[in-house]
Amino acid sequence: MRYGKIVLELPAWVEPFLARQEAAFNSMEARMRLAIELSRQNIEHRTGGPFGAAIFETRSGRLVSVGVNLVEASNCSILHAEMVAIVLAQQAVGSYDLGGEGRPSHELATSTEPCAMCLGAIPWSGVRRVVCGATGEDACAIGFDEGAKPTDWVGELHKRGIEVVRGILREEAQAVLRLYSELGGTIYNAAGGT
Amino acid sequence: MRYGKIVLELPAWVEPFLARQEAAFNSMEARMRLAIELSRQNIEHRTGGPFGAAIFETRSGRLVSVGVNLVEASNCSILHAEMVAIVLAQQAVGSYDLGGEGRPSHELATSTEPCAMCLGAIPWSGVRRVVCGATGEDACAIGFDEGAKPTDWVGELHKRGIEVVRGILREEAQAVLRLYSELGGTIYNAAGGT
Repeated sequence: MRYGKIVLELPAWVEPFLARQEAAFNSMEARMRLAIELSRQNIEHRTGGPFGAAIFETRSGRLVSVGVNLVEASNCSILHAEMVAIVLAQQAVGSYDLGGEGRPSHELATSTEPCAMCLGAIPWSGVRRVVCGATGEDACAIGFDEGAKPTDWVGELHKRGIEVVRGILREEAQAVLRLYSELGGTIYNAAGGT
Repeated sequence: MRYGKIVLELPAWVEPFLARQEAAFNSMEARMRLAIELSRQNIEHRTGGPFGAAIFETRSGRLVSVGVNLVEASNCSILHAEMVAIVLAQQAVGSYDLGGEGRPSHELATSTEPCAMCLGAIPWSGVRRVVCGATGEDACAIGFDEGAKPTDWVGELHKRGIEVVRGILREEAQAVLRLYSELGGTIYNAAGGT
């Protein structure tokens, strides 16, 4: 057995891209716009699938981390945009719990609703709100599989104290999914694809 | 925003521990015994929670990767044992799909049934069989939250071509969960705990 390791880092285009953004993300739309633009840049730079995410302090709007889909680039099926954003936010605050005592409340904006894995990761992350752009159905429409989510996944998050807001700038988010499909991007559903 | 990165590596005790193991893992019990022993070593070395996992080539029994829970050690809520094993197996084979064409079939042995996140990650990983020791209820019995899984999660994996075998060496696996609880180990349910 090889004792592999993996280094998770954002693509090189992310830092200059973020340097060009406004400093404040004061509305859900502004936060979603960043997530969607990350998804678009990720396909334009050919660094991964059409998904972007970002984590903010809910009240101040301060950007804490961003994520893009890095599955193909990293040979790693778990590196969906939401997972990357969660990992990097936790590194930034120095805790595995973004909702820990004494911390400001955090929220995750994701360009497409979370798949079954990312949905399962959200309660462990400590974020208190999830803001979604395109729907799971929109992702399925271009061939991605969402996995088996609980029927009332929104209710399940609510039960754990996590608010869900759906359909913010859905058309813009959906347009990136369609563009990826038109460009012939890989649809990588491991179990479904073989 | 800081441009954090994370390096995922196994704890230092893992390499000498594995060097002491038999070369062949020819039965489900032998594979499960390794996963359980990893969970036990992880708490004895105080490197994380009471969970271990390993990925094997199903037919040959060759060990491809191992994982232990690294949530606290890495400040990263997604680093459950199964996730670590999946990431490292994909690095070892050089693909995000362990079930890709031309590859031998892979299986995941996990000392405790997967939580909602790990369950969602399994179809994307490409493994074709999941072998479980302790049950989700056993983990809940010491205070861990499994998250919201689909009611028939075994059936949902079957639909995606993934076999599930439950209850292999359950008592041994359960004993490690109990030991962790007796030692006063952290129960880190982010959303539930605050």
